[in-house]
Amino acid sequence: MNKKIVIIGGVAAGPKTACRVKRLLPNAEVRIIDQDNLISYGGCGIPYYISGDISDENELRSTFFHLIRDEAFFSRAKGVEVSTRTRALSIDRQRKRVLVENIDRGGQEQVAYDQLVLATGSRPNLLPIDGVDLDGVFVISDLHQAIFIKERIIKGEVNQVVIIGGGAIGIEMAEAFVDLWGLKATIIEFMPQIMPRLVDWEFAKMLENHLGEKGVKVYTGEGVTAIEGENGKVRRVLTSQRRLDADLVVMAVGVRARGELALAAGLMVDPQNNIVVNERMQTSDPDIYAVGDCIAVRNRLTGKSGIAPMGSLANREGRIVADNLAGIPTRYQGGIGSFILKAFDCCVGATGLTLETARAEGFNAAAVTTAQSDRAHFFPNQTTIPLRLVFATDTRRLLGVQGFGPMGDAVLARINTAAALLTKGATIDDVSQVEMAYAPPFATAQDALNAAANVADNLAAGRLRYVEIKDFITWVTDFSGRPDWANWVALDIRHPNEAGLLVAKFGHDKWLSIPYVEIRERYQELSKNKIMLIICDAGTRSWETQAFLDGVGLKNTLVLGGGLNVIRRLGVDWL
Amino acid sequence: MNKKIVIIGGVAAGPKTACRVKRLLPNAEVRIIDQDNLISYGGCGIPYYISGDISDENELRSTFFHLIRDEAFFSRAKGVEVSTRTRALSIDRQRKRVLVENIDRGGQEQVAYDQLVLATGSRPNLLPIDGVDLDGVFVISDLHQAIFIKERIIKGEVNQVVIIGGGAIGIEMAEAFVDLWGLKATIIEFMPQIMPRLVDWEFAKMLENHLGEKGVKVYTGEGVTAIEGENGKVRRVLTSQRRLDADLVVMAVGVRARGELALAAGLMVDPQNNIVVNERMQTSDPDIYAVGDCIAVRNRLTGKSGIAPMGSLANREGRIVADNLAGIPTRYQGGIGSFILKAFDCCVGATGLTLETARAEGFNAAAVTTAQSDRAHFFPNQTTIPLRLVFATDTRRLLGVQGFGPMGDAVLARINTAAALLTKGATIDDVSQVEMAYAPPFATAQDALNAAANVADNLAAGRLRYVEIKDFITWVTDFSGRPDWANWVALDIRHPNEAGLLVAKFGHDKWLSIPYVEIRERYQELSKNKIMLIICDAGTRSWETQAFLDGVGLKNTLVLGGGLNVIRRLGVDWL
Repeated sequence: MNKKIVIIGGVAAGPKTACRVKRLLPNAEVRIIDQDNLISYGGCGIPYYISGDISDENELRSTFFHLIRDEAFFSRAKGVEVSTRTRALSIDRQRKRVLVENIDRGGQEQVAYDQLVLATGSRPNLLPIDGVDLDGVFVISDLHQAIFIKERIIKGEVNQVVIIGGGAIGIEMAEAFVDLWGLKATIIEFMPQIMPRLVDWEFAKMLENHLGEKGVKVYTGEGVTAIEGENGKVRRVLTSQRRLDADLVVMAVGVRARGELALAAGLMVDPQNNIVVNERMQTSDPDIYAVGDCIAVRNRLTGKSGIAPMGSLANREGRIVADNLAGIPTRYQGGIGSFILKAFDCCVGATGLTLETARAEGFNAAAVTTAQSDRAHFFPNQTTIPLRLVFATDTRRLLGVQGFGPMGDAVLARINTAAALLTKGATIDDVSQVEMAYAPPFATAQDALNAAANVADNLAAGRLRYVEIKDFITWVTDFSGRPDWANWVALDIRHPNEAGLLVAKFGHDKWLSIPYVEIRERYQELSKNKIMLIICDAGTRSWETQAFLDGVGLKNTLVLGGGLNVIRRLGVDWL
Repeated sequence: MNKKIVIIGGVAAGPKTACRVKRLLPNAEVRIIDQDNLISYGGCGIPYYISGDISDENELRSTFFHLIRDEAFFSRAKGVEVSTRTRALSIDRQRKRVLVENIDRGGQEQVAYDQLVLATGSRPNLLPIDGVDLDGVFVISDLHQAIFIKERIIKGEVNQVVIIGGGAIGIEMAEAFVDLWGLKATIIEFMPQIMPRLVDWEFAKMLENHLGEKGVKVYTGEGVTAIEGENGKVRRVLTSQRRLDADLVVMAVGVRARGELALAAGLMVDPQNNIVVNERMQTSDPDIYAVGDCIAVRNRLTGKSGIAPMGSLANREGRIVADNLAGIPTRYQGGIGSFILKAFDCCVGATGLTLETARAEGFNAAAVTTAQSDRAHFFPNQTTIPLRLVFATDTRRLLGVQGFGPMGDAVLARINTAAALLTKGATIDDVSQVEMAYAPPFATAQDALNAAANVADNLAAGRLRYVEIKDFITWVTDFSGRPDWANWVALDIRHPNEAGLLVAKFGHDKWLSIPYVEIRERYQELSKNKIMLIICDAGTRSWETQAFLDGVGLKNTLVLGGGLNVIRRLGVDWL
């Protein structure tokens, strides 16, 4: 008898599992069950379908050799049977069978399995507020929703969109609405910053500033209190602060695993509804595996498990499930939280933990922000790519890296390198020495990532003392925030032409200009009683100046990490 | 008394060491001695200066904040004394002093040191042939040579350039001559491929084909026998095969460490003239350090030491020397051989070992070549980036990765990720699971590098049997090469419209067309007596087909790894 493998769920993890298991066990009978009629599509491409970058939804359902991945394709090309519009109602673990129902015809069937795979995915959260059921309020739950939204735009029914949620999907959707269609888009984020927990404050602010430049309004720290409509159609969104007209609302406030089927079958499911699996992707029933958005993934840095709803992980996990179904003992090493996001002409990416999450997880963590060039400074089109490196001060272990830069693969190159290092438990010393490829059109001789590790090393060793960008900005605009701030003065070591504008604005008492090359000759002009915030464009000259001043006994300095290059990208009004 | 640190050599490693040691030990007296008048320049930028991408040589000598790094700059900004046009003649280790001579004034001086750093660099090799001293024959030894070459081009004295040596510098120089100036450039390489030992044959061929498209003639497997001139000026280059007119010749046949000063001082120097150092960068005299092109660098993969003349390593090493001079016990982990190279509209990069070098070093090595997309196949502007992954079949350890793609950072992103993994002794299983950042504009859900590891896994497990691209190409054009080849037949599983052209060209007997989606229905048409070479665009459908055919007992197949996508980039005449 051939082995019967039944897979519930046909978007990403399910089909991946099915296809690989057929390659490993060509004689297995593999069947996918899905309640939708559309299967095996690239859900991460939905924003690009809505924007028009991808003109036809079938492109999201096609192989790279231009065949549509429908039931017939799976049957002919893959030898996998797919039952669409078929809902799994319950699992009988004793008899090893799944009760399914055809949604259109209504008939029920018992589907026997030797091994069962749950790839039931996740569903978007809905806020518990009035108006979520109004016509025109969408969640990006599947490709159908994307098609509905695009149809409305094409018909000219949409002018003003409010996006609830400033995470990756919310931001990608904002770009989709604004870039090609020219719609008015507003993002509302409940947390004090967009991309909460994904990047630290500075990086969220750089992104927010760029969204603003492109016409996307962003309000952070505001809860949506209600959605109002007229004649059943959405008309406006109310927040704690304002009323926003809207003829389309996208709610992108996270997702929740679909663990109900597993729970009802008595499988172990965590309090957040995620199905619990071991390293072999087995649930608490060894003949039932689970994969994709519906499982709790162990974070390799924190050791804690939780939902990790990423298409990239779904595919990796599907391969591992297939291996184990075929008797290959591949173990899942867990996730680290890598991501990258295009937002108009810029991108932001990260891997591992932010400083905020690292500290919340109990690490003795510190972070440095740098502003190095992506390629040799003498090479045309080079630009600054701010990086932030988070590390443990006790073990020197790398905990995370964030990057911001122009659209392209420069940030990706650094994030992926950091992801590889994180995966292998690297220290900042490893990051300093990792031999990244160099030629002037691609990198600096010491790559920006190596340089970030060097700054972290200086900080860890107590050779660098710095002021947080957020504190610096607050100090510039308002002295009164903290008692010690009255005693601070900026020491601007850039060229006097550059520094002069800020000296004129803030006055000599608050903003002192001594060029970098003159410090060794003029350090005696400096006060011993004030805290001097050393300012340059990237932070490197500032650290060098701090080291020199330490040597002559002037230890009353702090360096502005990342320098004005980062602050400029945040969009303050005084620079 | 302040510590006296003397550094011989002022291009890259020397100034890096000097500047960091001044940050760590602000009171140290640091002095750089260099025989040139130009110091601290980006030598790797020379091709871009010659091409005109960088208009002024001073840009190669400037900081990113636009100050020229001359003696005055080092003195004022860095507190480092620099003696240019000063040659170090000998080292008196007993008395701890260096005898130096001013090249212009002729006076000699004894320079006392507490610690000495040798950053004496390397010099380009000269072939032992007639004509190397003719006017118009250059080596890229320093910035002066670059200035001389550019002056000749600007004056219109150059039309035809012959470049001896098909390594990275030769190729970068060829682009410099052709791209903006429109000169005729020819590369002569003695080895059977360009970039020998840096990439395997397929990747060299893809690059060679692109150079050809851009008008650069490349001759491999040819030794230069003489350079001929008229009236002392170069006129032509003779090889074992041909005579090439030339009014400028660039000899780029590798470099050799300048270890003479160390040798004369009785320090340990290896037979290739490289200064031997320990992990702290100390020579056999613990008060004398060495750094940069002049040292033997330990390769982290092979454990063997040799010259590693890379600007990126020079800077890393300089930081480590400075740490140790300041009492910080940083250890140098060694090199792995990462590089990336721009060539017109394409780039090639690699890290670690090629298959050829891995086998020569005694590894049980195998390699797979893949042709995956750099970003989601439905995303505009996606393209194929061939990767080659070399690994040890016994330990499954990653040994190297090569990449080829369009100019940009897509290849860089994969090479750097692989470099990080290599650094930490990763296996192909680690490469498969490394969580690279994903969004459709940046990558595929399983990154191309993850996918290459998956193919390697299939090969290592004996689930994949393949034919080398080189063998396949030879078979296509000539049956007679090996006796078993007469028994081979291509099974082209692409769409019949695509396969049809080759069926027509080679005939049904040699080139069989059965589309991928029809294999399960039509496999009984296949011969059991012929070896079938399964052909698709990337190799992935071919492997799937092989797995299916294995399952029905047809085990007489081989997969063409990387598929026609790679072969198309090699520039064969039948495709």
